Amino acid sequence: MSNYDVLFLPHNKKITVHGGESILRAAMSAGVHINASCGGEGVCGKCRIIIEKGTVEGGITEMLSKDDLEKGYRLACRSLIKSDLVVRIPTESVVDAGVLNKQSTPRRAAHIKEIDFEELKEKGLFLPPVEKRYLELPEPTAQDNLPDVSRLVSYLKLNHDEHRLVVDLPVIRKIPDVLRAEGFKVTATLARPVHEGRKTHIINVQPGDTTGQNYAIAVDIGTTTIYGQLIDLKTGEVLGQHGDFNGQISYGEDVISRIVYAEKAGGLEKLHNVVIKTINQLIDKIIRRSGIDPDSISSITLAGNTTMTQLFLKINPRYIRRAPYVPASTLYPPIKAVDLGLHLGDHVTALVYPEISSYVGGDIVAGVMGSGIYRTEKLTLYMDIGTNAEIVIGNKDWLACAACSAGPAFEGGGIKFGMRATNGAIEDFSIDPVTFEPMNITIGNVRPKGICGSGLIIMVATMFEMGIINSLGKFDRDLDTPRIRKSDDIYEYVLAWKENTQINRDVVLTEIDIENFIRAKGAIYSGCMTLLNEVGLDIDALDRIILAGGFGSYVDLEKSMTIGLLPEIDLDKVTFIGNGSLMGAKMSSLTNRIRQDVVEVTKKMTNFELSETVSYMDNYVAALFLPHTDINKFPKLKARLETCKTVKK
Amino acid sequence: MSNYDVLFLPHNKKITVHGGESILRAAMSAGVHINASCGGEGVCGKCRIIIEKGTVEGGITEMLSKDDLEKGYRLACRSLIKSDLVVRIPTESVVDAGVLNKQSTPRRAAHIKEIDFEELKEKGLFLPPVEKRYLELPEPTAQDNLPDVSRLVSYLKLNHDEHRLVVDLPVIRKIPDVLRAEGFKVTATLARPVHEGRKTHIINVQPGDTTGQNYAIAVDIGTTTIYGQLIDLKTGEVLGQHGDFNGQISYGEDVISRIVYAEKAGGLEKLHNVVIKTINQLIDKIIRRSGIDPDSISSITLAGNTTMTQLFLKINPRYIRRAPYVPASTLYPPIKAVDLGLHLGDHVTALVYPEISSYVGGDIVAGVMGSGIYRTEKLTLYMDIGTNAEIVIGNKDWLACAACSAGPAFEGGGIKFGMRATNGAIEDFSIDPVTFEPMNITIGNVRPKGICGSGLIIMVATMFEMGIINSLGKFDRDLDTPRIRKSDDIYEYVLAWKENTQINRDVVLTEIDIENFIRAKGAIYSGCMTLLNEVGLDIDALDRIILAGGFGSYVDLEKSMTIGLLPEIDLDKVTFIGNGSLMGAKMSSLTNRIRQDVVEVTKKMTNFELSETVSYMDNYVAALFLPHTDINKFPKLKARLETCKTVKK
Repeated sequence: MSNYDVLFLPHNKKITVHGGESILRAAMSAGVHINASCGGEGVCGKCRIIIEKGTVEGGITEMLSKDDLEKGYRLACRSLIKSDLVVRIPTESVVDAGVLNKQSTPRRAAHIKEIDFEELKEKGLFLPPVEKRYLELPEPTAQDNLPDVSRLVSYLKLNHDEHRLVVDLPVIRKIPDVLRAEGFKVTATLARPVHEGRKTHIINVQPGDTTGQNYAIAVDIGTTTIYGQLIDLKTGEVLGQHGDFNGQISYGEDVISRIVYAEKAGGLEKLHNVVIKTINQLIDKIIRRSGIDPDSISSITLAGNTTMTQLFLKINPRYIRRAPYVPASTLYPPIKAVDLGLHLGDHVTALVYPEISSYVGGDIVAGVMGSGIYRTEKLTLYMDIGTNAEIVIGNKDWLACAACSAGPAFEGGGIKFGMRATNGAIEDFSIDPVTFEPMNITIGNVRPKGICGSGLIIMVATMFEMGIINSLGKFDRDLDTPRIRKSDDIYEYVLAWKENTQINRDVVLTEIDIENFIRAKGAIYSGCMTLLNEVGLDIDALDRIILAGGFGSYVDLEKSMTIGLLPEIDLDKVTFIGNGSLMGAKMSSLTNRIRQDVVEVTKKMTNFELSETVSYMDNYVAALFLPHTDINKFPKLKARLETCKTVKK
Repeated sequence: MSNYDVLFLPHNKKITVHGGESILRAAMSAGVHINASCGGEGVCGKCRIIIEKGTVEGGITEMLSKDDLEKGYRLACRSLIKSDLVVRIPTESVVDAGVLNKQSTPRRAAHIKEIDFEELKEKGLFLPPVEKRYLELPEPTAQDNLPDVSRLVSYLKLNHDEHRLVVDLPVIRKIPDVLRAEGFKVTATLARPVHEGRKTHIINVQPGDTTGQNYAIAVDIGTTTIYGQLIDLKTGEVLGQHGDFNGQISYGEDVISRIVYAEKAGGLEKLHNVVIKTINQLIDKIIRRSGIDPDSISSITLAGNTTMTQLFLKINPRYIRRAPYVPASTLYPPIKAVDLGLHLGDHVTALVYPEISSYVGGDIVAGVMGSGIYRTEKLTLYMDIGTNAEIVIGNKDWLACAACSAGPAFEGGGIKFGMRATNGAIEDFSIDPVTFEPMNITIGNVRPKGICGSGLIIMVATMFEMGIINSLGKFDRDLDTPRIRKSDDIYEYVLAWKENTQINRDVVLTEIDIENFIRAKGAIYSGCMTLLNEVGLDIDALDRIILAGGFGSYVDLEKSMTIGLLPEIDLDKVTFIGNGSLMGAKMSSLTNRIRQDVVEVTKKMTNFELSETVSYMDNYVAALFLPHTDINKFPKLKARLETCKTVKK
């Protein structure tokens, strides 16, 4: 798809976007406000713009008169960009030119970092955990009637210099027929020991030369979603990927309700079977799509939070939710995949990521391993905000971690119209600083149903920057707009009038919502502060931030700093790694170095139970403001807010 | 039961026997001949004796007249000894006094040796493979919320100096509830590494203090019979033992027919399931009888021949019976007992004895380990004669082994009236040197049905010593007795006339039987000779003989040397260890030293495929005589035979 330049007038802001993008979204990205209530479905008719130059597709509606159309009017939300454009926002939508410079900067998401297999090799981190060796063995005779296994082992020594070999039972069972299938031409799959001095296991034998086919599966067992990847162990390439809802969702949305279910008679068994079923469906789908031979899958690595891991392994998670929150274990031995009921060859061992505590799980450890923060000098803040929020701070010398009781605000919990990031959720937002009319953009460009986490951050940040809410999250009672009103004694802002929604109710953001949201972001920020304080550092010591989890990719970094969710830092020091848990699982599939290091790393990771840490409550109370009691921790924001005040005056 | 002295007149031979024994058996043990055709059932009425002093129970029959009874006549076979006795053999049964000194010496079985647990400890051989440790753990608090597993591990370090611990998944699954069952008082079961430097596995946790209960199961998987033992790991004591027919018998009597069945569709699965079922029934029975807690069984060790082992492990034994006779493997990794379908806790690991070749199996290796011949200076011949015959010769410096194609003669195969050692089999025999009337003793003291292996040895030896058959196994055609006759052109000896049998046919021993028998014993003896020759030694280099297998306990040593089955050696240098396979399995259960040594020992054991060994055929042909072509290899027998000739003259 081509990229096009779009120039917005009278703002005189230019942005480069992918062809096919709507003008509304392009404007949002450019930081240009256009009134838009209906989320992009084209029903409110407010986002009128004029195409002064170039071609768009669509944007024509009965809400525009013939005269309008001739003048070049279109609805921004339905106009798809097909060439370089000059777009004018008509004055009825902008109100006056004085506000142009008060618009927020263009949205800035974190840049994305992925694993580079070649870099791994260069850094000497590549110790393949599973390798294949091809052999042409002499056939047995009366004078040379070695047992089949001994024949294989001795020629692996002779021809490939392989020593200290152990043969697993499935191989012993297969070997007589496999050796004779193609005249004693055979490929052996060797699983290397994680720790030096241990033995190499011969885990599989296949007739003929199959050295070209050697694969691994990496799985992130999320509370909501499970992702699987098929990895080519020769190239490090991801050959297939698939995600699906964790089948356990029917038994409870969050870890606590899953634990409650697991405590019922037969509940643990049920949840275990259901998650295995989901993973099996995922594996089956990935294998089918890729067309590989399932027998050439040599390993599976999985990571999940502590509860998900215990349910996956059929370990009663009962005590995870009871003070003093004790998990059964944090380290797991390698387990035969078939023993867990996984649809993989009986030669496949499942490696499960170790954990730190009941609420800092294998998904976080995997993220620490996958992102490499345990190997760097740089003091890094690693954050994974999903159903739960976990943070790790540290570098190669030390690591501190904590689970933040942020609650589910970022997934829509505790917010009147909060919802998951699915169709109809307002995900992006801007506000007219004079009329206070909103610009709502929804997932799927449909009429709004509610607000998702990333939208919420943008809303609160935007309103705060514009002075619509104060640092306590309270609306300015003096503003002259019907959108801010008092209902049931609670102030709220109307994002979309009911006729522009899918639910036939006004979609609003209330002061209670904002309060809950501030508590959530405060819990996370104060978690970071507490970890830093406990090692005698302050927030400015951070060299970089790594964001993980689905949430991280959608988050507007600057807005997150505006509300005090993220510490203020140069935006280019923030990296997004996507699914850190999956990344770690993939890394472990590719190199034993990670497996060697992981136990040491977990020993090094000091877990802080925030509720038991004295400094936490002070930090938490101080964080219950926008952005924080101490604005000096956010110097850039402070400067920006002062500019705003100047402009307003 | 009391022991009594029995004096036989006119022989003037005294013997001490258990009370309740029959006079017929006591006479046989004393080397006193009494005519007896019916095996001891009391129907032929030939074994008349006179009780001159003392009391017997029974022995009265209508075949004895009132007059006889008054004179003290009884039937020897039905008279049970109840006091010291003086017994006279009436002259009608002895013929004349001249033969008294030609009677064979009393029967001499090998002395029995069992494992001495205290001796093991003294010799430093006791490295317990599984131990239990009791702990009283502090309960977790908010300040001390270690994972359950970490708590256990750290206090095992602190209180018991246990290091390098690994925790298995079943333990992780159990630990949360087990710790809390008795207020964090808990017993951990530790499985020691076989090889130093490896890790100790925590394989089980139990509430409270169960250190007093720690057991192992040892199993011998025989082709015909499976034996199991329950062993107390604290004392080395055998708490229970049970044997049962291998359920696979319905699918074939010997290993070859089992392999043939295993090659059919579903056959391997079937045979595997059947042997597992037999073992499970055995385990269930032993556990039930002993009344122990099955959860306190910590290990199982099994030994069997190569085919039995492969079927037990569900490994296709197809190539074992095809030249060049290649087994799948000879070493097996430790395997979870539950993965094999065994009715044991999921913490139990099954150890399976390694093998040497397709026909020298784990039962023999177990015997070598259990009997300790690999640790001694003494040059030892180890023989296990069961369905197959295997021999090992060597000491701590070298070991050579071979399977002898003896055929099933010792189990009754190829013998016209051959049968297994069950009810009605003639197991002991003597012959009147003048009348050539037999003295048959059967298992169960019932009328004969046939001849078992031990009886056959005694018959052939006795007839050979008396000159009734010559060194080629041919009957003396000149003897004047109806018992030796020609039938269908084949000479035979009538052991029992049909009216005295259970089968209403004359039970006979034919020259063809003797020929087959000589081939069998020749195969075994020449196997020994070949192994010795290959290392440059002769038969007189042997320091001792160890007999293993059910057969060994019934065998008359001197008679076995007379026929040239065993090399001639001082009788007190022959030891019988019973079921060597079971003994080895028990030893491995008791000490890791055996497990450490066994791999080295199997490497040291040189297997000779006799059919491929040049010297074997010469040795075999030389052994097809009674006792051997070279009588000088049997100097004592030679002297005895010369005495006989003198007496005869």
